Amino acid sequence: MFSDTDTVKLIEDDPGSPCVEAIDQTKLPSELTLVRLYETGAIVDAIKRLVVRGAPAIGVCAALGLYVVARRGYTEGTYRDHMLQDAGSESEVLLGFVRKQGLIISESRPTAVNLSWAIDRMLGVAARLYEDGCSASRILDGMHDEAVTIYHEDIDVCRRIGEYGVGLIRDGFGILTHCNAGRLATVRYGTATAPMYLAAERGMDIRVYCDETRPLLQGARLTAYELSAAGIDTTLLCDNMSASLMKTGTVDAIFVGCDRVAANGDVANKIGTSALAVLAGRYGVPFYVCAPTSTIDLCTPTGEDIVIEQRDGSEVTGLWYEKPMAPEGIGVYNPAFDVTDHSDITAIITENGVIKPGDLNKLNYEDI
Amino acid sequence: MFSDTDTVKLIEDDPGSPCVEAIDQTKLPSELTLVRLYETGAIVDAIKRLVVRGAPAIGVCAALGLYVVARRGYTEGTYRDHMLQDAGSESEVLLGFVRKQGLIISESRPTAVNLSWAIDRMLGVAARLYEDGCSASRILDGMHDEAVTIYHEDIDVCRRIGEYGVGLIRDGFGILTHCNAGRLATVRYGTATAPMYLAAERGMDIRVYCDETRPLLQGARLTAYELSAAGIDTTLLCDNMSASLMKTGTVDAIFVGCDRVAANGDVANKIGTSALAVLAGRYGVPFYVCAPTSTIDLCTPTGEDIVIEQRDGSEVTGLWYEKPMAPEGIGVYNPAFDVTDHSDITAIITENGVIKPGDLNKLNYEDI
Repeated sequence: MFSDTDTVKLIEDDPGSPCVEAIDQTKLPSELTLVRLYETGAIVDAIKRLVVRGAPAIGVCAALGLYVVARRGYTEGTYRDHMLQDAGSESEVLLGFVRKQGLIISESRPTAVNLSWAIDRMLGVAARLYEDGCSASRILDGMHDEAVTIYHEDIDVCRRIGEYGVGLIRDGFGILTHCNAGRLATVRYGTATAPMYLAAERGMDIRVYCDETRPLLQGARLTAYELSAAGIDTTLLCDNMSASLMKTGTVDAIFVGCDRVAANGDVANKIGTSALAVLAGRYGVPFYVCAPTSTIDLCTPTGEDIVIEQRDGSEVTGLWYEKPMAPEGIGVYNPAFDVTDHSDITAIITENGVIKPGDLNKLNYEDI
Repeated sequence: MFSDTDTVKLIEDDPGSPCVEAIDQTKLPSELTLVRLYETGAIVDAIKRLVVRGAPAIGVCAALGLYVVARRGYTEGTYRDHMLQDAGSESEVLLGFVRKQGLIISESRPTAVNLSWAIDRMLGVAARLYEDGCSASRILDGMHDEAVTIYHEDIDVCRRIGEYGVGLIRDGFGILTHCNAGRLATVRYGTATAPMYLAAERGMDIRVYCDETRPLLQGARLTAYELSAAGIDTTLLCDNMSASLMKTGTVDAIFVGCDRVAANGDVANKIGTSALAVLAGRYGVPFYVCAPTSTIDLCTPTGEDIVIEQRDGSEVTGLWYEKPMAPEGIGVYNPAFDVTDHSDITAIITENGVIKPGDLNKLNYEDI
């Protein structure tokens, strides 16, 4: 059942031959399928094909995946196969093998920051233990613990965002969200959805409205799926319907995730977020951004310093459709993200507390 | 070629056997196909299947169609077939035939006001001429003139809206529009698009941005098609991207159509319009509503008095898609229209001039 299933997790029924188990998100919303990933190629393929997607989930998948590949390679003896000759100590050969596999995994989606961050953490532990003169077996144990720590940290950060966020929700609330900053983008809870799951856990009566989120429909395919599968009262709407919905007084709060928070509190998130924030202001609806502190980037002064990726127009004109829905060769404006002005944001919810966007620059680097 | 073709028109190569020629909008944007409609069943089918759509175009199609059916029925002698016995004068039998066909055509889309309005006008002329003792031939000539008048009135109203609207456009303007209040919804020019076509006619350099307009994609399928086919620089975007676009400073004005204008200047139009108007205010972009005076309804005090049609959720979850894009059975919020507050509207452009929404109630009924 979906609500008992982590988006990615480590399976260790046989500790010498572990694997990564993941929800195959390419099959959603029509079917819930779990895939088991045993080797580098399968992990890379899962990340490339968006079987696993969402920056935090990708990071955890990569960390668990690298451990799985290392452990299985050692158990099966294949970790030596990459050597031209059988040279070096067991731990030295293992480290070389792990570095090579880590590099391959980290290149599966080159722009995903969490991916290289997770692989770097895993390789750092392996290198440190090797330099400390540890055995191959000890290195593997250290990698295991680091991967499991990364997995638990993700759950913990989301849960804490949920704890702070649920304090802003009251019984009977209607909540609007955009895109998928949900559990499917993390191990469990999600970021924007964490307050909703905690509200549901506590027996609160909430209704959630999901923007479908054109062009890639993450709201329809993923958020509407995961919330309704968890038994939450969920309603889907097109992105252009949110003003109409807010005007009816049905929306009491908006929770969205984010890709990056600038030092002045401007927030880059999925295209459509900034419109939602402006409309929320107009209709008196609080607008909350759920942001793990890892997304707060004090080196970026304002939202204007964030480069917005323009994506291929075919996502708008043809993807998902039976036939092209726009004239051939038409120009398309298709930015992946937009920047929400800090003045339109009620508060930013991090795992360390709720903060006004204008107060971010009062933080010390140590705070985040 | 598209730009030389009216959306609907009368073909009278053989005056005794006329027909209606229409652009088949179900084939757009992939192919431009003209269909010829010769009898009642074909006219009803074209309106039902959205071969012809858009309230003004439907009205013109119905008026021309009823004339075509009457004239052909008379030429071929089939106008007598509906009689149980060959009783009454030629003109009396013709009037009965015309009333019957008019009723059938007017029921093809029961909620379309322009449809019954056009049929009523046609039947009114036929009845008046009959009561004046005119011959069948004279009644047919009167119906011909009334149908052609309705056709020309539509062109004239749109052209005059265009004349007033183009006065608000300057060379180099970027213009945003929503849904299709275009020539495909009228005979020629459209309402919201009329200022754009006139700007292009005058050699002005304009760029037009079309919201795709979920769920039915009229912006992508129809507006982007007709503007680009007319040689206008056209760019498509998803509805949730307009705030991002406005923020770049690329949009100098927004022109939209409308379904109904209330006495206080509130405007009902395609879902998504009200969000666009609020965002326009935020980014300092003038927001213009192009409204034939026939859509101004001084009997409706405010937008709150306008009932908004909720449509089937399957339009959002499944239509156009290769497979359902949302979980089965999910609740859907799918209003067809929303109400834009008069305070968010810069001006309303009618065929009689440009008026501030707050000044509508100063109009006399005679003015509109």
